[in-house]
Amino acid sequence: MKIVLIGAGNLATNLGKALFRAGHEIVQVYSRTEASASALADALHCSHTTDLKEVIKRADVFVISIKDSALSAVASSLQEGREGQLFVHTAGSMPMDVFPFERRGVFYPMQTFSKNKEVDFSVIPCFVEAKSKDDLQCLKTLALTISDTVYELDSENRKYLHLSAVFCCNFANHCFSLGADLLKKHGNIPFNVMLPLIDETASKLYSMSPQEAQTGPAVRWDENVIAKQIQLLDENPEMQKIYELMSKSIHEEK
Amino acid sequence: MKIVLIGAGNLATNLGKALFRAGHEIVQVYSRTEASASALADALHCSHTTDLKEVIKRADVFVISIKDSALSAVASSLQEGREGQLFVHTAGSMPMDVFPFERRGVFYPMQTFSKNKEVDFSVIPCFVEAKSKDDLQCLKTLALTISDTVYELDSENRKYLHLSAVFCCNFANHCFSLGADLLKKHGNIPFNVMLPLIDETASKLYSMSPQEAQTGPAVRWDENVIAKQIQLLDENPEMQKIYELMSKSIHEEK
Repeated sequence: MKIVLIGAGNLATNLGKALFRAGHEIVQVYSRTEASASALADALHCSHTTDLKEVIKRADVFVISIKDSALSAVASSLQEGREGQLFVHTAGSMPMDVFPFERRGVFYPMQTFSKNKEVDFSVIPCFVEAKSKDDLQCLKTLALTISDTVYELDSENRKYLHLSAVFCCNFANHCFSLGADLLKKHGNIPFNVMLPLIDETASKLYSMSPQEAQTGPAVRWDENVIAKQIQLLDENPEMQKIYELMSKSIHEEK
Repeated sequence: MKIVLIGAGNLATNLGKALFRAGHEIVQVYSRTEASASALADALHCSHTTDLKEVIKRADVFVISIKDSALSAVASSLQEGREGQLFVHTAGSMPMDVFPFERRGVFYPMQTFSKNKEVDFSVIPCFVEAKSKDDLQCLKTLALTISDTVYELDSENRKYLHLSAVFCCNFANHCFSLGADLLKKHGNIPFNVMLPLIDETASKLYSMSPQEAQTGPAVRWDENVIAKQIQLLDENPEMQKIYELMSKSIHEEK
């Protein structure tokens, strides 16, 4: 397929590369920033622009992968001259109808993307939605060229999927970050000692539910340890609050 | 070495099996519960008892791996007749001095153990401490027979290490659990769609710090998405509080 890529952030970069490798033709990359636009265009062997007015008028699909808050405005400025074209965005939390286009859809690859770490797209579940049946079929076909796991999911349920991903990825990662802070301040232990524990925490989920996998003072409701650990966090009231809230929530779930 | 194992819980089971496989002789297993004691003793080809008074009097090391709150009492009842023996516990959050024995130490393998999932002990970092230099050397040697990563760490710093592990493992896992709840209630998406995302979240830490790895609405401080997601959690005030607190904490760390 001929694809125009609007955006050159982490997701756009990873998605663009996966589409390119799967044999699709990325015909143009747009980004507000010249450096980002040209870097990604180089990798995808295509032209680039930093001017929305210069975006190509015809393609099989326009993929808009920019920050959520800019979606609506950028879509508006692309409307003129592109009637009848298919536009999709890649934002988990945004409804399909944020787009004014008649042919509109969503192509949400659920993953945490960092620019300088390439990911194996084939294992990333992709969630697609489209206004028309034909476009939905087209997006499914497109998704299957880069991923082994493609789901059809409407905007309402995708909101919760994205929220679930925020817990499973961003908040879990923040727990790692808080753990890293503690190690930095006490003892002389490098954070990488935590990696086998973190790997096992993730790996357990292949054979049991996270609820079954839970261990530690909160699920045992070991009040003695809990009280002592809350005290250890005395100098950091916010972390203390997180500790209390998470422990209570683990205990109540049991 | 000849080892007596007091306890037959998740940690004791995994540790006992690793020691056995490394060629040590587990001479006896004690557990309050007959079923647990005999199951583990069978696996370790040794005798078992459910009576503390029948615990063997001489061994190279007595490993006490029971719940933290029982450590002190069990230690007291083992004192008589075992003068001069080396006792260690396996509890990350308990100081070495919870033990009344002259020869005392700690052998803390930092991992999340579930009984029905065996782990590769060689990658588990073990943290050892002992009252005497000779016993410390002995515990280091013992630890190196089952793990590639052995650290000496005192009780004060181990408290923080264990607290860090609570964040990196238990709290991160609870984020997975909260994410799983959301999926169960909305849409018809199985939790295993989250596994590639969770794997990548863990895997990123091999090439960047958790702070560098952070993505999502909170680190971008996308107030629009954050407000909408808080609203989605309207029916669950506790999860809403966790969402707000974690998002704020991610934002402030930036």
